[in-house]
Amino acid sequence: MDETFSLVLFSGTDDKLNAAAVLTAGAAAMGRKVNVLLQYWALDAFRADRIHKDHGVAPEAGQEGIELVQRHNGQHWSEIFRQAKEIGEVTIRACSLSMEMFGLRMEDLDPLVDGQEGVAAFFVDVDGPVTFI
Amino acid sequence: MDETFSLVLFSGTDDKLNAAAVLTAGAAAMGRKVNVLLQYWALDAFRADRIHKDHGVAPEAGQEGIELVQRHNGQHWSEIFRQAKEIGEVTIRACSLSMEMFGLRMEDLDPLVDGQEGVAAFFVDVDGPVTFI
Amino acid sequence: MDETFSLVLFSGTDDKLNAAAVLTAGAAAMGRKVNVLLQYWALDAFRADRIHKDHGVAPEAGQEGIELVQRHNGQHWSEIFRQAKEIGEVTIRACSLSMEMFGLRMEDLDPLVDGQEGVAAFFVDVDGPVTFI
Repeated sequence: MDETFSLVLFSGTDDKLNAAAVLTAGAAAMGRKVNVLLQYWALDAFRADRIHKDHGVAPEAGQEGIELVQRHNGQHWSEIFRQAKEIGEVTIRACSLSMEMFGLRMEDLDPLVDGQEGVAAFFVDVDGPVTFI
Repeated sequence: MDETFSLVLFSGTDDKLNAAAVLTAGAAAMGRKVNVLLQYWALDAFRADRIHKDHGVAPEAGQEGIELVQRHNGQHWSEIFRQAKEIGEVTIRACSLSMEMFGLRMEDLDPLVDGQEGVAAFFVDVDGPVTFI
Repeated sequence: MDETFSLVLFSGTDDKLNAAAVLTAGAAAMGRKVNVLLQYWALDAFRADRIHKDHGVAPEAGQEGIELVQRHNGQHWSEIFRQAKEIGEVTIRACSLSMEMFGLRMEDLDPLVDGQEGVAAFFVDVDGPVTFI
């Protein structure tokens, strides 16, 4: 029951980032360690200068879905991640390969990101579920 | 081997809903307990008045893919979920946050949905894989 | 720590296929057995006559993202899967239901694919994470 929740976060739309943040907070609240690895479009969404901009939603949302999400007065997903880090042991790292592909350095990212690592290093700490979002 | 299969079902296109239903049925057939948590577009797809309508497929399908899926005479994913519940211990719950965001009540949902719960409650029952679709 | 990494590979865009290949290689490098099950658009991408063609990227990439991915001089994901099979115990199977839906036979697929199986058979070997990409 106290296994690590390992989350590979690949998607960069606000609906999936919000789902990821809520799962992270829920796992942390239940006493699980959470390791998040940011890849591709999720990494791009954690850039310091873009984290609060509109990242859109999944194409299947349609116009009705977009309006529902925008009308909803919930917290921003970055704030939910911030609270999850206060609640429990949550580490957010950038995938080295994606950092290189996007030409990013650590100072380009929001302070929520604790460091960077490769996928093999990520797997060293896997001792439970591996969830890809 | 008898761990729970915990499935966070987020996507609302017919191809992913079908994949989720088939994985649920396969896990149930192998004697696993299955807990499904419906979020966002998947929750919307389980509305009683929409469950049988066309929910489209992932954008990557292209025209050829759309036609292949439509031509295929398989069972509807809701029917596969129904059978999975007969085969094994399968529980389908709506995520409370998504219910609130979409302004839904339990009576708006198909009877396949057994109740609603928050993400922390969902994690209480996690003792194996956590799969996000 | 030596549990199987069970990967249901559903998506057929080059960015997700690359993420899947890198996770497979990372898991194999860390001594894990990896079982990949190809469904839908991922199965289509493993067709012998299509594996090296352009499979696009997730819609959220935008024009900037497409150019970043194309400019990146990394290995093709099929090559990363090939290397993962050399490093460790990696098995790639086609989902029988998707084979039938797409009207495919084993000889239509790239030699990276070791065989086909149903979802229930896939679950027999699940003894750790189940990741859906």
